[in-house]
Amino acid sequence: MINKAGRDIPEEFLKEDQEGFQGQYYRNHYEYKKAAPRVKGAVGPQKSKLVKNIKEAVEKCGLKDGMCISFHHHFRNGDYIVSMVMEVIHDLGIKDLTLCASSLGAAQSSIVPYIEDGTIIGISSSGVRDEIGRAISSGKLKNPAIIRSHGGRVRAVEAGDIHIDVAFIGAPTSDAFGNARGKGGKSDCGVLAYSVVDSRYADKVVVITDTLVDTPNFPASIQGVDVDYVVKVDEIGDPRRIASGVLRMTQDPRELYIAELATKCLVATEYFEDGFTFQTGGGGAPLAVTRFLKPYMDEKNIKMGWALGGITQPMVELMKEGYIKALLDCQSFDMASVESVNTNSRHFEISTSQYANPLNKGAFVNQLDFVILGALEVDLDFNVNVVQGSDGIIQGAPGGHVDTAAGSKVSIIVAPLVRSRIPTIRDRVTSVTTPGESVDIVVTEYGVAINPARQDLIHSLSSTDIPLRTIEELRNEAYALVGEPRDIEFENQVVALVEYRDGTIIDVIRRPKGLE
Amino acid sequence: MINKAGRDIPEEFLKEDQEGFQGQYYRNHYEYKKAAPRVKGAVGPQKSKLVKNIKEAVEKCGLKDGMCISFHHHFRNGDYIVSMVMEVIHDLGIKDLTLCASSLGAAQSSIVPYIEDGTIIGISSSGVRDEIGRAISSGKLKNPAIIRSHGGRVRAVEAGDIHIDVAFIGAPTSDAFGNARGKGGKSDCGVLAYSVVDSRYADKVVVITDTLVDTPNFPASIQGVDVDYVVKVDEIGDPRRIASGVLRMTQDPRELYIAELATKCLVATEYFEDGFTFQTGGGGAPLAVTRFLKPYMDEKNIKMGWALGGITQPMVELMKEGYIKALLDCQSFDMASVESVNTNSRHFEISTSQYANPLNKGAFVNQLDFVILGALEVDLDFNVNVVQGSDGIIQGAPGGHVDTAAGSKVSIIVAPLVRSRIPTIRDRVTSVTTPGESVDIVVTEYGVAINPARQDLIHSLSSTDIPLRTIEELRNEAYALVGEPRDIEFENQVVALVEYRDGTIIDVIRRPKGLE
Repeated sequence: MINKAGRDIPEEFLKEDQEGFQGQYYRNHYEYKKAAPRVKGAVGPQKSKLVKNIKEAVEKCGLKDGMCISFHHHFRNGDYIVSMVMEVIHDLGIKDLTLCASSLGAAQSSIVPYIEDGTIIGISSSGVRDEIGRAISSGKLKNPAIIRSHGGRVRAVEAGDIHIDVAFIGAPTSDAFGNARGKGGKSDCGVLAYSVVDSRYADKVVVITDTLVDTPNFPASIQGVDVDYVVKVDEIGDPRRIASGVLRMTQDPRELYIAELATKCLVATEYFEDGFTFQTGGGGAPLAVTRFLKPYMDEKNIKMGWALGGITQPMVELMKEGYIKALLDCQSFDMASVESVNTNSRHFEISTSQYANPLNKGAFVNQLDFVILGALEVDLDFNVNVVQGSDGIIQGAPGGHVDTAAGSKVSIIVAPLVRSRIPTIRDRVTSVTTPGESVDIVVTEYGVAINPARQDLIHSLSSTDIPLRTIEELRNEAYALVGEPRDIEFENQVVALVEYRDGTIIDVIRRPKGLE
Repeated sequence: MINKAGRDIPEEFLKEDQEGFQGQYYRNHYEYKKAAPRVKGAVGPQKSKLVKNIKEAVEKCGLKDGMCISFHHHFRNGDYIVSMVMEVIHDLGIKDLTLCASSLGAAQSSIVPYIEDGTIIGISSSGVRDEIGRAISSGKLKNPAIIRSHGGRVRAVEAGDIHIDVAFIGAPTSDAFGNARGKGGKSDCGVLAYSVVDSRYADKVVVITDTLVDTPNFPASIQGVDVDYVVKVDEIGDPRRIASGVLRMTQDPRELYIAELATKCLVATEYFEDGFTFQTGGGGAPLAVTRFLKPYMDEKNIKMGWALGGITQPMVELMKEGYIKALLDCQSFDMASVESVNTNSRHFEISTSQYANPLNKGAFVNQLDFVILGALEVDLDFNVNVVQGSDGIIQGAPGGHVDTAAGSKVSIIVAPLVRSRIPTIRDRVTSVTTPGESVDIVVTEYGVAINPARQDLIHSLSSTDIPLRTIEELRNEAYALVGEPRDIEFENQVVALVEYRDGTIIDVIRRPKGLE
């Protein structure tokens, strides 16, 4: 079928409840029974849930061939958990597993051989970067990987599309009964937001920590009542790589100009008023937008109600200075954010269900006024690709892109017109991550294109000095600079499905020709 | 059948999965799939969940004849919510409802006519006191009421024995998206622990508040992602009756003597060591025990790890003075406790699932060293009745009695030998609430009886000056003082089932002869 994003989804991936993408709000008011785990009761006096090592936990959980296991990526480039657990599982000879991670990257490259030898046959993840991205792109995984946004992953678990048999949750601190936090210990990552859904919906839950503390380890992100076993290991990760010292503050004049333009767009809308709500990613231009907002807030004498999502130093500083009333954090991106969520009583941890699940009773993304997002590619229908490189290899992650773009009143994409002689604005994206109907404004250094569906924004912005262009004009400019990109060729083999946040399929990714 | 507590359970109440009581740890490691609600997703920008009144909320929830609705009792004697909601439902002509409350008492007496006219045909509750207790005892409710402990209620909901169609949650503060807290506003009740399970397992969830606050109302007890509608009313309750000023500090020499004896028993056990854990109820003698512990802790130079359950001023003061490391609160009993949970970072709110559910992966009651509990009656098998008066009328509540007695290492019952010429210690309790196998020590002003099953405690306590008696000696003493009680006569009609915390039936309550 050709879905609503204009993409051809092979019939073999459309069976039972699995539909092609039908529009961003297609499943509004969709009614369903939530999933639930199988659990074992614990009656009577209990001493602790400690087991001696990961192997004992895996065995006690009854992990078997064909099951689904899960992990979070709060330890980012410093994560040891996935590698440690997968080595134990591989040594036990358990195979045909599906791995449901919130994201995967360079820290998990050790699992590539397990993809090749059939230990892992399925992957559900937001990011599949680096070597794992290459392995999947070249068709080494038995089943197509499923790329899900943060909201889409929680939805899939809460709606029962994924049933997690065993969740392995790395935690900077835990007590012997599994009350676990992202805070404290020697590998403080701030929050454990991605794992909350795993802890509530997995049949078996294992907390792995390097810092055992007294009961109760409260306030806990992961509740002991949901945890079966606790394992103490020497190190859950490399603290230096878990939280970056500081994210890069760009000095690049092109990025700064794009950020300035994006900020001007934002403040020119009717939604820039006291109590406005805001999210931005961690890239150079988005971070700069956060800093650029301050003088405009001063001028209008307004404050931000709350900022959402991955939290960074510029946000933390704005809150300290009184410009933001609350931070809602599902990922502490840097040391400043970790420090803040540990100490500032208006910096709150939220679960990814609270953040972005499209099928709970209302996630925070639905209350967003503005979101600033990046893009690898944007096309003439305003579709955005943040997953697949223009060379066809999977290298990115939807993260909260899809979720915030759909939930917010104004979504603003910031991107350079070309990158390394590859046009960002083009006829057609290599694959669709976020549908064009969720994308309102595209900001490049050559001007700003507003989605024609948003005549209200065109009206608001046309009385400013913001250089407005059509998306076709931006494409023409890009092609004039670096030429029209040649279509890359693909094999027929589908290596990944891009699932829209509501569970429909928005695109498929095929193996680039010649990629081994 | 005659169950393991020696009680005759009519076969008509034993069908499908419903068994008679089989022993306190019968369902340890019982495996089951948890229940789950049917929900509707909310995709895309959302403005608020506010509806204009309770009637609109009831209608939007689609409440129909035969459904199950739920309430909490955190507003205790000051609650307006049950009366307000039931009046609306009655006026809409909806009938045959089952009401699943965490407890019911004098504040809900307005529902008695709805029991009589068939608006309400079933009740699940811990307490059924005052006029409601009398109405149920006299057989006016169509179906037998089900008496459940706090842990038993959560278990029943999480295991699917009760399916709540619509939960009505009174909240001192809420934002327009349903993030609700027990804290703040004009009717501050401290915590909303009883309602957490309702919010997660009911199909529809309505938050009713008299104080709307800005989003996000965090940290929230009830998460907006679980809430369908928010109603603002003028008053949710009478603040003066929600939290008592102070609970009664007994001056009664008999109660003080019993408390002193109970304290001596506690400190004579091997479990009185640094980090010990403790719960006590709000009666005169139990509260006195909390105060009496201090010199013994000084003498041994130890601290309490945490205190659990309903929290009261003596606990709060001990923590302030550094004797307790943490308070785990599922009900703030007085103003001091409400104040403390609002301000003290070591005073934590927990849900009743975390508190006492026997069929999650390990509730806090399972980590209790000591619990001090009351009793209406105790029999020669150490069975305790806290539900039914010796006149046969239902007037009490198991609360956490059953749960803590089963989970703790040492359960201590404190009770006067006789009350108003009625013996507390007797051959056979009128009905069994807590089975004798969960009861370790019975303390009266005439001496202390230890359950013969606990030879370890008999050994520890026999080298002290505590006056040890057998339970038969205590019974003899009671009967010598006031005479052997005459058996009251009952009709055949069963008016209530006493469900053990694990879902088995421990006793049935019949209608006292002649009661109208």
